[in-house]
Amino acid sequence: MTAKLYCFGESGNAYKAALTLELSGMGWEPVFVDFFKGEARSDAFKAINPMGEVPVLVDGDVTLTQSGVIQQYVVDQTGKLGGAPADKYEVLRWVLWDNHKMSSQAGVTRFLMNFLPEEKRPQEAIKFLQGRLAAAYAVLNAHLDGREWIAGDSMTVADISNAGYLFYEEPFGFNRADWPHIDAWLTRISKTPGWKHPYDLMQRALPA
Amino acid sequence: MTAKLYCFGESGNAYKAALTLELSGMGWEPVFVDFFKGEARSDAFKAINPMGEVPVLVDGDVTLTQSGVIQQYVVDQTGKLGGAPADKYEVLRWVLWDNHKMSSQAGVTRFLMNFLPEEKRPQEAIKFLQGRLAAAYAVLNAHLDGREWIAGDSMTVADISNAGYLFYEEPFGFNRADWPHIDAWLTRISKTPGWKHPYDLMQRALPA
Repeated sequence: MTAKLYCFGESGNAYKAALTLELSGMGWEPVFVDFFKGEARSDAFKAINPMGEVPVLVDGDVTLTQSGVIQQYVVDQTGKLGGAPADKYEVLRWVLWDNHKMSSQAGVTRFLMNFLPEEKRPQEAIKFLQGRLAAAYAVLNAHLDGREWIAGDSMTVADISNAGYLFYEEPFGFNRADWPHIDAWLTRISKTPGWKHPYDLMQRALPA
Repeated sequence: MTAKLYCFGESGNAYKAALTLELSGMGWEPVFVDFFKGEARSDAFKAINPMGEVPVLVDGDVTLTQSGVIQQYVVDQTGKLGGAPADKYEVLRWVLWDNHKMSSQAGVTRFLMNFLPEEKRPQEAIKFLQGRLAAAYAVLNAHLDGREWIAGDSMTVADISNAGYLFYEEPFGFNRADWPHIDAWLTRISKTPGWKHPYDLMQRALPA
């Protein structure tokens, strides 16, 4: 049975799971969640994930949420994208860092700046988040100076996790030109055979 | 050789690592980092952790950062607090969720409301973060309804991770009385043999 990923195109967290599935070679298909019409907060969806969030992976009788958990499941199932055993803690470190400092803030900032009506955008909070994000970009950019991949010698789920929001074109204060090592690394990821942009992997919930 | 944890009392992230070490029975000792005097951003400390953050665990020739990584290392070393093998993804799910939705926001909100000079506190950002935190408390409170522990039948690193900031008395918008299932679970954790409050495990960087 093909694994089903509940997702929508605008979600960078869903993209982390979708791209991991796609590049691992594991069979999967997207199930569209109409997020901006409230489907993720519906009773039907909350029965699948009480956290009210995408992504959710359903593979037979296994149901998993949180992009990092789905990534680990795909690594366990396929043996791909987990890195060398010696790099286990380093991969986990950067997946956690992404969840703590990068995607958590990039995701909400992009949401506030693009998907809320203009008059509802909390400008001081946006400015605050952008300041914290600049510190996160600086940490990642410095780490990628002299490295091809975040952990070890190959692309891993740590790369996919940290890149989750950085391929989107909607403005949220991230400009690739400001961060040359991040820029080169994103190019490297996007040249990996099988790579796809989030909007080519998953249906968008809003018009382009 | 005894493992050394670079930490200070006010850091809930350091507390997650310290309490995991303490309850696992693994030998450890705290190394105080004078955070509010800028020591975590010093060159000497950044040579240990370029992320400029505590906690850092040094165990022989192993150096690890990110509380969730240190927790996983302690589980691997001691066989304690990892939960049953069948609950592996559920434990990881809640550690990631904590990093994404709970501690990341509780930590910064508590910092802004207590450790910044009053005139520098960004009130709109604090209000915004408190709104998001209320949604996180609601998710955790609902999950703990009818459960003793977050994942499986015993206390795991997922409980310690999510509780990391919730034992502190400084105000940040979290009131135990508002969330009865969280309140009962925190009491359960604090009654575990060997449990200690963060300020009894690690030296404070600021006067009480």
